[in-house]
Amino acid sequence: MRVMGIDPGLVNCGWGVIEVDGPRQRHVANGTARPTGKAMAERLLSLHELLTEVLAQHAPDACAVEQTFVNRDGAGTLKLGQARGVVMLVPAQAGLVVGEYAPNAVKKAVVGVGHADKAQILHMVKMQLPGCAPHSADAADALAIALCHAAHLQTAGRLAAAVARG
Amino acid sequence: MRVMGIDPGLVNCGWGVIEVDGPRQRHVANGTARPTGKAMAERLLSLHELLTEVLAQHAPDACAVEQTFVNRDGAGTLKLGQARGVVMLVPAQAGLVVGEYAPNAVKKAVVGVGHADKAQILHMVKMQLPGCAPHSADAADALAIALCHAAHLQTAGRLAAAVARG
Repeated sequence: MRVMGIDPGLVNCGWGVIEVDGPRQRHVANGTARPTGKAMAERLLSLHELLTEVLAQHAPDACAVEQTFVNRDGAGTLKLGQARGVVMLVPAQAGLVVGEYAPNAVKKAVVGVGHADKAQILHMVKMQLPGCAPHSADAADALAIALCHAAHLQTAGRLAAAVARG
Repeated sequence: MRVMGIDPGLVNCGWGVIEVDGPRQRHVANGTARPTGKAMAERLLSLHELLTEVLAQHAPDACAVEQTFVNRDGAGTLKLGQARGVVMLVPAQAGLVVGEYAPNAVKKAVVGVGHADKAQILHMVKMQLPGCAPHSADAADALAIALCHAAHLQTAGRLAAAVARG
């Protein structure tokens, strides 16, 4: 199963794809989508096109997006929300259910603690995905989101199997 | 020239299309897109499909979206931003430049004062677009945005013509 994680942004939008086979997981690809255009609508269009291409190329079976908001600033949160709306639309258009995780949930799943910093996330992403060199901090975050979603899906799968066994 | 206004929302997304010919303007259509789906990504997908259909049906030449953020609440602003991102994407995908106006600018353009209430907006929209019966308060807001954008485009056009005349 291929799992994609996306860290939304209007300037740098990180993405990462991993492959999961039972307890094994390996890195497939990662990158940073950098939308072009001055006007907001142009940037959103560019972001949509870039991510649609990534999805078509790597054909994930599952996808998750980080759930952040900027507390200090309504205008900043609105902008991030606009990017996030387009980011969530792309996998939905590909027929995928889109998982959402708060940053602390991602850190807890990948590093073990909810207050990990960027360096710790990068370290654990590299540990769990040998040979992977994240393209940017945002791409590393996206891979962490993919790892978190994969862990969540596997737990959910084991639970469902246990319930089915009765 | 056909001008479309959109009042973004994840529950009720108002839209309105008017036709402008020099000083004349007439109502073409208005409505309220009501996205379905429980999960956020589903609702965004539904919103995208509904608005894409409206745009295809009424083929506007220009489009504008209201620029709002919810000051009190980061989570609410993020949600509205997500809807707004998808709303701005749709006309951009149709090749349109997307205008953005703050609510006060819309009120000022349509009612004459920046602090007009919903009833005043509805009244002025009906005055300026005879025979028009807005589908909802959000659709009336969307028609007001279209009127504001049309006024802005005409002023910009007159200025450009004056400059060209030298």
